[in-house]
Amino acid sequence: MEKVLLGHGSGGRIMHSLIRDRLAPAFEMDALSDAAIVDAGSCGRLAFTTDSYVVSPLFFPGGNIGDLAVFGTVNDLSVSGAEPLYISSGFIIEEGFSMDQLEKIVSTMADAAKRAGVRIVTGDTKVVDRGKGDGIFINTSGIGVLREGVSLGSTMIKPGDRIIVSGFIGNHGVSVMAERNGLTFDPPVLSDTAPLNGLVKDMLDVCKDIRIMRDPTRGGVATTLKEIASESGLCFLIDERTLPVTGGVRGACELLGLDPLYIANEGILIAVVPQYASDRLVDAMRRHKIASESVCIGEVFDPAASGLVTAPASGTVLLKTSAGGTRVIDMLAGEQLPRIC
Amino acid sequence: MEKVLLGHGSGGRIMHSLIRDRLAPAFEMDALSDAAIVDAGSCGRLAFTTDSYVVSPLFFPGGNIGDLAVFGTVNDLSVSGAEPLYISSGFIIEEGFSMDQLEKIVSTMADAAKRAGVRIVTGDTKVVDRGKGDGIFINTSGIGVLREGVSLGSTMIKPGDRIIVSGFIGNHGVSVMAERNGLTFDPPVLSDTAPLNGLVKDMLDVCKDIRIMRDPTRGGVATTLKEIASESGLCFLIDERTLPVTGGVRGACELLGLDPLYIANEGILIAVVPQYASDRLVDAMRRHKIASESVCIGEVFDPAASGLVTAPASGTVLLKTSAGGTRVIDMLAGEQLPRIC
Repeated sequence: MEKVLLGHGSGGRIMHSLIRDRLAPAFEMDALSDAAIVDAGSCGRLAFTTDSYVVSPLFFPGGNIGDLAVFGTVNDLSVSGAEPLYISSGFIIEEGFSMDQLEKIVSTMADAAKRAGVRIVTGDTKVVDRGKGDGIFINTSGIGVLREGVSLGSTMIKPGDRIIVSGFIGNHGVSVMAERNGLTFDPPVLSDTAPLNGLVKDMLDVCKDIRIMRDPTRGGVATTLKEIASESGLCFLIDERTLPVTGGVRGACELLGLDPLYIANEGILIAVVPQYASDRLVDAMRRHKIASESVCIGEVFDPAASGLVTAPASGTVLLKTSAGGTRVIDMLAGEQLPRIC
Repeated sequence: MEKVLLGHGSGGRIMHSLIRDRLAPAFEMDALSDAAIVDAGSCGRLAFTTDSYVVSPLFFPGGNIGDLAVFGTVNDLSVSGAEPLYISSGFIIEEGFSMDQLEKIVSTMADAAKRAGVRIVTGDTKVVDRGKGDGIFINTSGIGVLREGVSLGSTMIKPGDRIIVSGFIGNHGVSVMAERNGLTFDPPVLSDTAPLNGLVKDMLDVCKDIRIMRDPTRGGVATTLKEIASESGLCFLIDERTLPVTGGVRGACELLGLDPLYIANEGILIAVVPQYASDRLVDAMRRHKIASESVCIGEVFDPAASGLVTAPASGTVLLKTSAGGTRVIDMLAGEQLPRIC
């Protein structure tokens, strides 16, 4: 009998097949966008999204499940081009969980909502028997209003577009893994958990023609790039030397046998933008505290017009490595880091 | 060190204190309504709600966690006076859960959404290690558009108003308890899980002045009545002889030592309505298949004008028992039926 595996939750290829082949068809919904864009009658276009947070451990350097849950949903709305407004919070608490820890998490959520400028307006609390949960799981759903004149989507991507990442990659995943394994780094690797709505607003002020934005959470930058490229039908060429990775993350990855490209992030975004606006966008982004390391990491090309002897299949992501070679980037296959968010 | 108890999740008094004293103040939100009414800029007024479902067992006579999750959120929106439109689904699945059961649940959710006329537009899937969950937990959040001219709330309640219940009470809770304990009844007691949006629409067509509606889920009819009475500052007098209880539920409650008034329901509502519209509303409601047993169960009175020698405190719910006495109805204190939804 077929069973659900841990890898079905880790953002990679087998999670995608679960969603694409089983869930999305049943619900007749689009499979992979961060938020649904819905028509609310006279209300116009809203963005609506949901995420459950099951991160383990609950507290990690730089954050805890509380800010992760608020910022994660704020970010899903933000990268879909919406202004996040309202958040719901659904708690599933294991019997025996410390009331002190619950209060710490709740107060972190309240602070996070203030920082992001959203309101937590509705909630629900369930308690399950000891041994039937794991401390606390939090679902947050969110509503945002779509900005006028903004229409993001992978179909907008054109050859020559530039690919931007807004900050150091891999920090969230490494901070959680370090905490889980009792490792400490000097200086410590902190989760990058942060709200992206202010950054996105400024980016759209600079250029309304941004093609698409995504926050590379589960599965990391590689999986997100592969998702976008596949949807666009075009190919991406990424220059490994431009990828912003701190020494701490690089060292931790070598120690733990991980690839920073596949590690979850919670406070950065990837944007595909028109070439003409790329430099101006990077400049504007760098003025943000959470995006001071913004950089163009690659570009979009049409495989049919690539001039390569063997043209890559559409949807291919190529990485020009620091060593000078080129390798194909695929989605995270199974499970690299379970319960990272 | 203070810890979270099972009773913190069962809809009764200690859950209310957790929400009222700790969660609601932190988030600066209204504590107990089924859905938040929010202003979405040019979008007007929306209703937004969330609920996590942790029912055990997952399958029970008359339904499973899937339709429960869809109808529960549809109903929270409905009783707040909104037309439910969009639902999100967040799955937390335990590693090793059967893919067959997942598909059954997903297909039940899809059917439930069709029946209720809502769309499941966004979703999320997380997997937790074996032993850190319990098969599957589902969060659904929902968005609805508030009907024009409808303004429900406990402050609208006036002395002389009538209290209506839309159907047999206790069926959902008894069906889950029976399944959990391996009991079967003849005829079987089926969960009443059903969408209330059609019923609510027809009720509001008959009378826009309905004061308030609630679906009496966790904590049952008694807890919901006590909630509404407390918020209104008035008192309710309920006539036990009018309460619709099937022989099956009555028998099961005697067997299990339960009180039908405190048992969860998933397909009925309680409405407080102006006296002048009460009969017309009951007539209209009875034309609905899911509300054919609708009945007026009591009325609202002003304790200061009650003429009783010792006036009850405001917010008191009195039950005139079948035996001719009168008793005070309070909220469910701790935990009668954990994980009932």
